[in-house]
This record gives sequence, C-alpha cells and structure tokens, in this order.
Amino acid sequence: MIAILKHGTTPDQAQHLIQWLKKMDLDVHLSEGKEVTILGLIGDTSRVDMELLNSLEIVESVKRVSEPFKQVNRKFHPKDSVIEINDQVKIGGGHFAMIAGPCSVETEDQIIEVAQAVKAAGAQVLRGGAFKPRTSPYAFQGLGAEGLRLLMAAKQATGLPICTELMNLVHLDLFADVDIIQIGARNMQNFDLLKEVGKTRKPILLKRGIASTLQELLMSAEYIMSEGNENVILCERGIRTYETYTRNTLDLSCVPVLHGLTHLPVVVDPSHATGKAYLVPPMAAAAAASGADGIMVEVHNNPSCALCDGAQSLTPEQFADLNRRVEIIREAMR
Amino acid sequence: MIAILKHGTTPDQAQHLIQWLKKMDLDVHLSEGKEVTILGLIGDTSRVDMELLNSLEIVESVKRVSEPFKQVNRKFHPKDSVIEINDQVKIGGGHFAMIAGPCSVETEDQIIEVAQAVKAAGAQVLRGGAFKPRTSPYAFQGLGAEGLRLLMAAKQATGLPICTELMNLVHLDLFADVDIIQIGARNMQNFDLLKEVGKTRKPILLKRGIASTLQELLMSAEYIMSEGNENVILCERGIRTYETYTRNTLDLSCVPVLHGLTHLPVVVDPSHATGKAYLVPPMAAAAAASGADGIMVEVHNNPSCALCDGAQSLTPEQFADLNRRVEIIREAMR
Amino acid sequence: MIAILKHGTTPDQAQHLIQWLKKMDLDVHLSEGKEVTILGLIGDTSRVDMELLNSLEIVESVKRVSEPFKQVNRKFHPKDSVIEINDQVKIGGGHFAMIAGPCSVETEDQIIEVAQAVKAAGAQVLRGGAFKPRTSPYAFQGLGAEGLRLLMAAKQATGLPICTELMNLVHLDLFADVDIIQIGARNMQNFDLLKEVGKTRKPILLKRGIASTLQELLMSAEYIMSEGNENVILCERGIRTYETYTRNTLDLSCVPVLHGLTHLPVVVDPSHATGKAYLVPPMAAAAAASGADGIMVEVHNNPSCALCDGAQSLTPEQFADLNRRVEIIREAMR
Amino acid sequence: MIAILKHGTTPDQAQHLIQWLKKMDLDVHLSEGKEVTILGLIGDTSRVDMELLNSLEIVESVKRVSEPFKQVNRKFHPKDSVIEINDQVKIGGGHFAMIAGPCSVETEDQIIEVAQAVKAAGAQVLRGGAFKPRTSPYAFQGLGAEGLRLLMAAKQATGLPICTELMNLVHLDLFADVDIIQIGARNMQNFDLLKEVGKTRKPILLKRGIASTLQELLMSAEYIMSEGNENVILCERGIRTYETYTRNTLDLSCVPVLHGLTHLPVVVDPSHATGKAYLVPPMAAAAAASGADGIMVEVHNNPSCALCDGAQSLTPEQFADLNRRVEIIREAMR
Repeated sequence: MIAILKHGTTPDQAQHLIQWLKKMDLDVHLSEGKEVTILGLIGDTSRVDMELLNSLEIVESVKRVSEPFKQVNRKFHPKDSVIEINDQVKIGGGHFAMIAGPCSVETEDQIIEVAQAVKAAGAQVLRGGAFKPRTSPYAFQGLGAEGLRLLMAAKQATGLPICTELMNLVHLDLFADVDIIQIGARNMQNFDLLKEVGKTRKPILLKRGIASTLQELLMSAEYIMSEGNENVILCERGIRTYETYTRNTLDLSCVPVLHGLTHLPVVVDPSHATGKAYLVPPMAAAAAASGADGIMVEVHNNPSCALCDGAQSLTPEQFADLNRRVEIIREAMR
Repeated sequence: MIAILKHGTTPDQAQHLIQWLKKMDLDVHLSEGKEVTILGLIGDTSRVDMELLNSLEIVESVKRVSEPFKQVNRKFHPKDSVIEINDQVKIGGGHFAMIAGPCSVETEDQIIEVAQAVKAAGAQVLRGGAFKPRTSPYAFQGLGAEGLRLLMAAKQATGLPICTELMNLVHLDLFADVDIIQIGARNMQNFDLLKEVGKTRKPILLKRGIASTLQELLMSAEYIMSEGNENVILCERGIRTYETYTRNTLDLSCVPVLHGLTHLPVVVDPSHATGKAYLVPPMAAAAAASGADGIMVEVHNNPSCALCDGAQSLTPEQFADLNRRVEIIREAMR
Repeated sequence: MIAILKHGTTPDQAQHLIQWLKKMDLDVHLSEGKEVTILGLIGDTSRVDMELLNSLEIVESVKRVSEPFKQVNRKFHPKDSVIEINDQVKIGGGHFAMIAGPCSVETEDQIIEVAQAVKAAGAQVLRGGAFKPRTSPYAFQGLGAEGLRLLMAAKQATGLPICTELMNLVHLDLFADVDIIQIGARNMQNFDLLKEVGKTRKPILLKRGIASTLQELLMSAEYIMSEGNENVILCERGIRTYETYTRNTLDLSCVPVLHGLTHLPVVVDPSHATGKAYLVPPMAAAAAASGADGIMVEVHNNPSCALCDGAQSLTPEQFADLNRRVEIIREAMR
Repeated sequence: MIAILKHGTTPDQAQHLIQWLKKMDLDVHLSEGKEVTILGLIGDTSRVDMELLNSLEIVESVKRVSEPFKQVNRKFHPKDSVIEINDQVKIGGGHFAMIAGPCSVETEDQIIEVAQAVKAAGAQVLRGGAFKPRTSPYAFQGLGAEGLRLLMAAKQATGLPICTELMNLVHLDLFADVDIIQIGARNMQNFDLLKEVGKTRKPILLKRGIASTLQELLMSAEYIMSEGNENVILCERGIRTYETYTRNTLDLSCVPVLHGLTHLPVVVDPSHATGKAYLVPPMAAAAAASGADGIMVEVHNNPSCALCDGAQSLTPEQFADLNRRVEIIREAMR
C-alpha cells in the first residue's frame, strides 16, 4: 500500500503517522520528493482501513499495491478452481454448466415439467426461485419452504441438481438438500449471511450486487472462503447504469478480468440483466465467447399461458437452440 | 399503470393480455391509435409485477401513473410525520435533529467523553457503531454486544438517545434499549431484516442504498410500515457515480424531491458521503439549506490521537461552529 | 406522446395546456381517471420539447410512445442498411467488416507496414488517428494534415479504404479522400459538426458518447441523415460507469437492442472500451456473438518498440487468430 | 507519477520501460519490493500519456501524484482568481454573482422585459440562449445571430452584461459584444472550440460535461488557459446518474472540492440540473451554502403565457425571494 502525503505535511505529522502504521506491524518506507512525500507500507496491509487512512488530513491519496483479497486471489492459487456439484456436475477449469429453469417455482407439475424439458435440452442444473426478493412488500414473495419441497420433487424426478436463493440466515436448515445456494445481488454485502454460508461446504453462487465493483464482489467471496468454504461461483447479472433500454447493463468484460484476478469460476445470467427474452440468446452467446464458465438462464414450459411466451424466459426449444450455438462458440474460443 | 403495446400486436394477443390483467381485479381501458395501442390499468396496481409486464413480447413499455408505495405516500398522508425519539427529541414537521458521535464505539471513556462533548455542542442524539459492516472480513468488525453496552453507559451519563446499526435480525433482542435502529445502506434491500424491524415500534433510520433509486428507498420504507411501524426516518448518505474525488456523490436534490413524495422526515449524512472532514461543514450547511430534517455527522474527541484530527470526523469545536451556522440557514429558509 | 397530469390539476389548467398543444398541430385525447388525467398527443410529436412539457407544474410525467427518431427508425425502413465503402467493402445486412490499424499515425513506414500486416491478416479497412482528441493540451495532438497524407500513402500501397477521425468542421476539405469519416465519442453531440458531415455523402462512423443513451446516439445519427447523408455506421466503444478495473464498460447488449430500433449497422470497438490488449480478443469475440456488423480494433506492427507489446493493441498475429475465431462464431450465430 | 509493475516483470522489461521514460526527460526512481516493483517518475509528467502507460503489459497500475493541470492549479496560484465582467461585475474571491434570464431569447420585448425584471430583482448578469444545442434536429435551434442582436438590445436597455452560449467556432466573430461566452456541457471536450476561445480574452463560463470528472473539467479549463485566456469560470450543472426523479444529479460537493484544487471561481446552475421549478430555490440555496461563487438560474416574465409558470423557470418574484435568502446564507457561511 502506498500513501501519498500532501504538500506541506510537517516532518512531525509524517512521523506521527509512521508510528501509528508501525503499530500495525507494518514496515514503512519513506521517500521524500520535492512536491510530495510517499510512504510505502510493507507487510499485511489487508487489515489497514484504507478509507480511514485516506480521510486523514495530511494524506493526499492512498493506493493498494497488492489486492486486499487473499484466498480468492489467483496469485496465491494460480490453478482454476473446479467446483463439483453433487459429484455430478463440474464448473470451472474448462468445465461449463448450463443452469436453467423458471423464475419462480409455482406448482409441482410446473417445476417437474420444466425440469424435464431443460434436462432434455441440455441443462446440467435446475434453477427456480422459492424465496423471492421483491422490491414491493405487496408483490408475491415466492412459495418459500413449500417451493423448496417442490424443487426436491423435481430433483427426484430428473436427477438434476438444484440451485435456489437463500435470503435469510435463519432459513439455512431448510436448504440441506439444495445443491447450490444462491446469494442474490441485494445480499452480496449482507456479511452475516456470507459468513453463515461460509460455514457450510456447499457450493455458493454469489451474484454481483447491482452497483458493486469487482473488488467488492471478490471481497464478498473472500468472506465466504475465510470461513472455510472454498466452493464459490461468481455470477455477473448486469449492473446499474444510466441506460434505460435494458433493465441493467451486462458487463461481459468482467469475465476475462475476473479470470485474471481470481481462480474462481464465473457464470453469467443474461435473463435478469436484459429483462427481455429476445436479448437472452445473443447475450448468452456473447457470454460464452467472453470465456464464461457457465450460463444461468430462465426457461419455462407453460403451454397454457400464452402470455409468458414473451417474458424474459426462453422456451425449451429456444434454449436447446442456444445450447447448440454455445457449444460451437466454446469450441472456437478454446 | 399504462402499458403501451407494440405496433403489430394482434387483437387476439391484446385480448389475451387484457383477460390476464382483469383476473388481477383491474379495469382495463383500451385506446387504439394508428401506431400504438395503449392499455390503461385502473385499480390496485401495486400488486402488478411491472418488470414481468414489461418483459412480455407484445409490450413496448410500461409506466406507472400512481406510485407503488402507499403508506409512505404523501398523497394519502399529506401532513408531515413527526418521529418522536424517546419522548425527548422530535424529527420532521419542522423539528430538526443533530445526530452526532464517533464512527465506532471503542472504549467506555471514549464514548462517554464524545457524548458529553457533542451534547455540549448541541447534538440531540448520539450515534456510534457497535456492529460494523466492513467490506473486508479481515477488518475490525466493531465491538458488537459490548459496544451496545458502552453506548448504554453513554446514554446514562448524558441522557442522549442512542442511534446505532443493526445488521442481523438475530441480534434484534440486543437492541431493546437502543432509541433509533439504523439500517445501513448495504442492507436497504435486506427485506427480511426490514420486516423484522417493522414488527417493532422503534424509530428506524433507513439509509439509502449506495445505488438505490428514491423509489426503491421508499419501497423499503414501505416494507417497514407495512408491518405496522410508522416511525421511519429516511437518510441520504451519498450515491455511487463515476466521480472519484469524493467517496460518494451526495445527492441533495433528493431532499426536496422526497419531501414531495412522502411525509417521512429526511436526514442527511455528509460524513460518509464525502469521506473527508473539510467537506463536511459545507455539505452539512447545504443539506440544511435544501430542507433536511436533520444531519448525521461524525464527531470525535480524542486529544490523545492527533492522527484522527484529519479523518472524516469533526472536532466538537468544529461541530459547535457548524451548529451555529445551520441554525441561521434554517431560519433563512423558513 | 402521453402526458400525465398531476392530481389536483384544475379543468382550466388542463384546457390551457390542451390549447397550447393544439397550436402545434397535435390532436389531444383527454382521459380522466380518479387519480390522474392522461393526455394522449397524436400527430408529429417529434417537434414537442419533452423536457419543457415535463417541467410544467401540472405535469406529473411525460412518455414518448413513438420514438423521436424517424430516418434511422427501423419501423419506417425495415430492411437493414448496407453501407458501401468505396465500392469495395460492405457493412451491414449480413456484411461484416474488420477495421484495424494503429492508434495514431506516426511515420510513413509505420503506417504502410501496419496496413500491409492487417490486410494480410484479414482486415477490410485501415484505421489510424491523424487528428487526436486529447484530454490534456500538453499531450501529442496527432500529426494532423500530415497524418492524413500518410494514410493516403498507405491506402495507395495496399488498396485498403481509410477510416479516420474528424474533430473540427473547418478541416472537412482535408478529408476529401478519406473513405469513412469517424466522429469521436466526445463530439457525438457536436451538432454543427454532425450537420456538416450530413451534407457530404461519405460513410460516417458515429461513436457513442461516453455517457450517451442509445436514444441520444440515434438522435445524433438522425442529425446526419436529416441533412441527406444515409451512410451512417454506429459504433459502441464502452460507457462510463463506477467500475474502474476496465477503462470503460463495454455495453454489448446495445448491439441487439440497436438492431431492433434501427436499420443502421453497428460496429464495436473493444480496444478503447477495455484499454488492455488481453481483453480485446474475448470482447471482440463476444461482440461478434452479440451480432455486431463489424469490429474496430487497434493493431500495431512495431518490432523496434518492444514496449508497445503490452498496450491495448494486438499484434498482427493475434489479430489474424482473432479473425479466424470470429468467422466461426459468426457462422454459429447465423 | 507512480507506476506499479506486475509481479513477474523481468529486470530487462523494467529497464526497457525505464529507458523509454528517461527519453521523456523524466527521472525514474526504482524501488523493488517482494511482491511489486514501483517506479517513481520525477519531472514534468503532464506530457506522459497515462492511459498508454497503464495499458502496457508489465504495468499493474499508474497513479498521478501531482495533478496533470498547471495553470488552473491552486498549488501554483494560491490566491482566488477574480473574473471581471466588463468592469462592472466580479466573480470569485468573495465576489458573488447572480446570472439570470430566460432559457431562450424569443422576441425583443420578451428579452428586454425579463432583463429589466431580473435586474430589479438583483441579478448582475443576463443569460439567454441564442444558439441552442438540441438533441433532436427537428427541435427549435434558437434564433441564432438574430438572438444575439436581441440580447444586445437588452444589454443597452438595462446595462446588464450578457452571457450566452457559443457552439461553433466559426460563429466566434458574432460574439464580439457578448460579455461572457458560455461553453455548454456537450462541448466541454470540443477541444478545438476551447482553443479558439482561449485565444480571446473574454470571460468563459465552462459547463461541466454531463458525465465529466472534475479532473476532465479542469483539463478543459487548462486548454483555455494554455492559449492565454485566464478568465475562466467553472459551472456545475448536474451529472448523469441512474436516478430518474431529477433530470440530472446536482453534485454540490464539487464546489468545495474544486475550491481546493483550483483558484478559478465555481458557479452552479440548479435549473438545468433539476429540470423542475420547485427544486430550484432549495438547490440554489444549498449551492450558496456549499460556497459557490455564483448561481445561474432561469427566470422568465411572461404573463401572457400562464403555461410557463410551471416550467423550470422562476418568476421574478420567486427569484427576488431567493436572492434575499441566498444573501443571509452567504453571510452565515463567511
């Protein structure tokens, strides 16, 4: 970490700061220039509160030289992590997974039907919401525990592992048979929840917050890993920008950037990012081209509800077609 | 709510959609133009999933005409809400409060000293962090329950009501003697936490998420009120933008905008927004000029730690000086 | 266009507004609800100042139903536009172009060497900056007119058409032999410059402003077309967000969105968006998967300057490799 | 400037870079750590292309230690600049100016009437648009040269200096009698226009671009000053964020930040930032509290057009009331 002191800092003030830093077991290298004085902090700077340091009156700015994340850091773990789902499916290190299913679990028939359809079309994991985070308290909040039960029925019927969202740490016991626990974008910095799932050994799919930096995403993954759980999958799902034609802006360049920074696999969710079905296939294909380790996509199979045909969900046929193209693209990028 | 259908929508498709909407107990007014068809939805549209509707293939766009929030809405509650803190302090409806104190509770001596200093300088409420949300799992996470105990000692010593952050719903019992429960920016959409504090009758200070829209902030307040707790105070603390000279961008125009949309009081926190002590007085003064119902500011009193003089905290003297100016500005804006 | 009037608007106020709108040759349909009154404006609303209307005291909000752009609108021109470059190269409507070359033109040898190298590697158009927009007045501003002369030498040597940026309308005469005139992101709303290039019949590559909405991009294209020049190519080059790991955030979902809104071709520039060479191949591949009509990429060939090996430019070998992969991806997405 | 080299950079690569930097007349201090190597660049780094340096393969990141701007920099010019307008009005260094007038010049009667009204209400400068930058080519583009003539008539009638926007460098001759030339937000990085007004000695009001950083704003001011014109006034007018309740987000913390970085005066335009008349008085008052050197506000006086009463313009009465409050606030902040 480097701290640049303001022009006009007195030697006394600088010494005061240096003593304070040394108390944190850091070595401090002082290099004085004509216009600025630079402190180089050597040692374990992950404990230094960068914002506090930056807010000091004599400090012009602070810059990390080494990243504040450790266990997720590729520098200390150069090989790609491969996350194993229930001894069936692998994600990362060249293994690619299609995670598909409906937005919400509605009925047993619905979820089993969709599960069979997405399996036939090539999905490796079934997704479906039981606990749903909703902006409005008056909106449908999901079937809850009953939704989990229906997902288990679909798992039994098809053999597909299940990925579904946990919103509340008191519900963790209910997730014993869930194969991948999803932490949603709104809870990416719900640190107590992260610690709790960090104590399990289950695969965790951690979605990027709607306005989170990649460093914040990695620090949240670090929370999980620091509790002992190494099975973390990162998920890009669109960020908030000023543009309003799409629901969010899918940030695909984060895929190769994250692959440089961390050994953890990166999955992309184009359904939530774009909010429109016609945008899902091109953006899923683009995600595959960018090097993603998996794609999470909404698929439904509800012939009785013609309405849904236009929602952000693909039909099983569209999903099968997408799978075929993604396979070719992955081959082209090898 | 208005739904604009795409050019080329067939009468059958439109009728299908209309029947679906009518099942939600809505009246639907159809007005067909040459280029577009417009559906006007009349009734309780707060239950309609606007994103789902918007994602339908035949729908060009959707626009809410009436706001999705009810209990927080000024239309249905024209008079300003006045939140009473412990029968001592009022916020809103012309009542203004200065909430001051250190970033974190450290020791009993520290918190009592600061409490006495901010009280003497004009503060009505003491703030101080016991449970601290930290980006890094390796950073100091606050004194926790012990921090709450020290805050109570400061309350006893000075009589000042206490405002401190709750991060985890399982800790709620520990907050029995806290006067204002703060929900931090990162938990603004932790809906289960909102529901839980909604079941209490304590004043809740709800901070705007770092990239939350005003409507999302109001919907989160609605979560609390829909559980029966009417004592909600909104707090602007800076939003995330591309600008990097300040930690966040303080959005002061939200103060008069929120006053138009809701009857709830609005407090501004310039310390976290700007991250630099020298920016706090001008931005606190600007907050008062914009019509804020209170200001939340970091103040410390630690003569043994000369370092802290430059942090985002004001000294008690600077805080007293600010109070004097804010008083004049509030008078000028009456 | 729809205008929603505020609750409490008097009939007199509404009539006043309606009369004002009718003077603009618009038909106004009034529909009064219990909570709101809605005005539907029928006719040529492209002349209505939406911001002025929105700022009126009695107006709650305004929404366009038909887009404000006409000549660029796919609704009125359903077939893809195919832009012909110098009778040699086509862009759009299934025709794809690779536009490659160095960031800046430096010397005759340099530009001819790169031109030969990119041609051999599969480029259809040579790019290179002669007039360079620079944030600092002290930075190298490009070779100017001399740079244009060197580009012509490279064109003569290779037969490749030239694409280069125009910053100042008084320089237009110098661009007589340039094949594609580029309008840079900073000048996307330099309306007088747009009108000026609209009076030519040359292909114009219009870059999206760093924080421009897609609608603003299309309105700027409309400026060019409204002066009679139909040869407009849109170019996505990254937008400004809070994320700092990449220089800008490449918004690839704009490709299928723009293809829905307009008949004009869409090209993607991953070099400027990402600012790092290692991110260019995955993002160029992703752009092809998203349906782009072309890719604009920095390539250099400067064995004497080992330094440049790491800049945002690809080597000709990397570029040839990318071309091969892009071809397969385009095939997969057909 | 500091360049941090990547872990794994070979001594040869580092030496190569160092030689390249030394050719630019820079001293380079090398400090090698276990994990990173840091280069400190001493000398005139304003010519170093930071983006190019940052894009090099061996470079982890680059940080400026001294700002890239010189003539606008308070470090080299500690005293506030005071800009004199036509020997009548001063802005900066404790001098405050109210710049008021209509959005567009429409007729001679209109502009003279408004000029008289704002003068009576306390304005020091008359603003009014003759050349109008409009998103749509079909919208009213202003009266142009005729508008300038009408502004001169208003100047003659009232003695108020005139501030109006220049969009096109070929129009500069028409602005001979204009007292403050405004460069609009969309042209903040139209560098050729900046150079051209830099060759005059007229006061230039430079508006911050809609998504410009403060550093970019200062670099654009540097363009003007580097051509010899020291009369630059900076203007904050709202930035683009994800929030949609206001047209833009007024960034008031930029006022004290800019006062720290530069000696140039800072004016705030709350009318364009918010887009609604009811938000103008609180935000203008907040601007005064934040330390602004002037306020630019839309005022109209058009009793025949009841409609306009609700636009983003204030009436002369509202403007006079605002002036009175601003005076008290400025006194309180002294």
